[in-house]
Amino acid sequence: MRFGTVRANGHERVVLGVGEERALPLDGVTSLARVIEEWPAAEPAVKQALAGDLTRARHVDQFEWLPPIPRPGKVICVALNNSANTDRIMSGPKHPAMFLKPASALIGHGQSIRLRAEYGRVHPEPELAVVVGRGGEDIPRDAAMDHVFGYTIMNDLTSPTMRGEDTFHYRAIHPAADGSGDVSYVDTWVTYPMRYKGSDTFGPIGPWVATKDDIPDPHDLTIRCLHQGRVVTEDNTRNLLHSVADVIAFVSRYTALETGDIIAMGTALKASAKGGSAVQNVDLTTLGGPVDVTISGIGTLSSPVEMR
Amino acid sequence: MRFGTVRANGHERVVLGVGEERALPLDGVTSLARVIEEWPAAEPAVKQALAGDLTRARHVDQFEWLPPIPRPGKVICVALNNSANTDRIMSGPKHPAMFLKPASALIGHGQSIRLRAEYGRVHPEPELAVVVGRGGEDIPRDAAMDHVFGYTIMNDLTSPTMRGEDTFHYRAIHPAADGSGDVSYVDTWVTYPMRYKGSDTFGPIGPWVATKDDIPDPHDLTIRCLHQGRVVTEDNTRNLLHSVADVIAFVSRYTALETGDIIAMGTALKASAKGGSAVQNVDLTTLGGPVDVTISGIGTLSSPVEMR
Repeated sequence: MRFGTVRANGHERVVLGVGEERALPLDGVTSLARVIEEWPAAEPAVKQALAGDLTRARHVDQFEWLPPIPRPGKVICVALNNSANTDRIMSGPKHPAMFLKPASALIGHGQSIRLRAEYGRVHPEPELAVVVGRGGEDIPRDAAMDHVFGYTIMNDLTSPTMRGEDTFHYRAIHPAADGSGDVSYVDTWVTYPMRYKGSDTFGPIGPWVATKDDIPDPHDLTIRCLHQGRVVTEDNTRNLLHSVADVIAFVSRYTALETGDIIAMGTALKASAKGGSAVQNVDLTTLGGPVDVTISGIGTLSSPVEMR
Repeated sequence: MRFGTVRANGHERVVLGVGEERALPLDGVTSLARVIEEWPAAEPAVKQALAGDLTRARHVDQFEWLPPIPRPGKVICVALNNSANTDRIMSGPKHPAMFLKPASALIGHGQSIRLRAEYGRVHPEPELAVVVGRGGEDIPRDAAMDHVFGYTIMNDLTSPTMRGEDTFHYRAIHPAADGSGDVSYVDTWVTYPMRYKGSDTFGPIGPWVATKDDIPDPHDLTIRCLHQGRVVTEDNTRNLLHSVADVIAFVSRYTALETGDIIAMGTALKASAKGGSAVQNVDLTTLGGPVDVTISGIGTLSSPVEMR
């Protein structure tokens, strides 16, 4: 089963996927987050809709798509979570490292990525994203998948130019090592991601949330990223270093997950890590769009690009 | 005028400050964000409440405080924005650098900071925070203050231990400098702040939002931070490198501001930068609380500490 959210007559409306290319608006259902909260009690009504009159289903291109969850409580993104990264990492954690995107940076399928020349290079990062069903904290690894509602697609747009600009090399204040209660200064690098990961439109997401029963193994999905019709990434989620269950168990030790939270699992880049087809060469600021991300069993997320 | 949000009978309720130490619940007013949206049309009713029966006002300690805006759309934090930092920065941007805290990390006045031994060192960072009134993008500097509703207090809890753990030293993929379309590898440091800045309870905030007419100059406020009754920071917002107007103008080039968004202006640490009284020596994980932050004209934010 696949869900999306569209705008119809100025209001949010939940739609159901019918076959590959059609979407059926659900009468009176305005919030996918609410559907998820009420799951599985809401499931029979959804199945009934799918078994009923499908003549009102229309082609996906006829809708104005919003992010499937328009305002998730938080959007957590896992960094460098692909086996193609390991030989480039000189030091770093063995656990998932994470940053946030603001919910206000999310845009739906077909909505434009809006860039400025001053953003510098901006490249796509195609990712599988988890949609949290039941929330929780301190979720054990073996119960983690019970907290997944389904999966969607995120394009984790990134500006390496702004990343470089927002990096400090400084002497951080630490307690003195001698325990004197005085301070010492430690040579430190810190990068602040608000701009380079969180600028408006840097989070294309959707169009579909595929329920987990549609996705028997989230670690065996192909991910493709096309730029202007040319394949720039082809990867498989088996190359994720930290699994969905690992990430849920880890992150929920630090932040309680809530229904509708999004966890983007990290950039697929295995096949593009070498040679000229790297996503890092796809500078949307100078090259424009569109950029498409397809994940098997979920769908295709398409984004035009416009300059502001 | 000062506003807060409390929990009463399981529901959110907006309160008004009466004198220094009392709060008056506003009948039927459940959302400060809504009050701000409706400002200045909502102002006369508020003034009427203050001119009316104040016998229902109770001492602040008799309330259960929530974050003044319990779920802001985003919480933007400015990094290293204090003149005490400048001699420690070897390289870094001249503009404001920013990160996000998840709204779910916010806690109200009197609510406990909850820590685990595995979080390592966690120290307080006392900060002035702006509450956005009218939203907007590309806000000109000279109109920026029109978008401020008021000011509150944030304690930007930070774990330097997790910061170190979540730092990667790696070879980032960049386009080849020769324009061949191939890639090159660039020695890069990246820090991911979700855990070290965004873990649950890492954002004590409130209790009060002072409206901007109460704060004639946001760059002439004293900030004090007390740990277990001992002063660990005494500073003044005149030491901010980037002013409120600068930050609003800058950030709104990248992300549209919305009513109720919070912008924490950066850690006050001028007086504590040297010697043994640095906030960095206040490890709440080993020392416990409480920690209090006071800003002149706004109030005092108090947080006990408990171990999970």
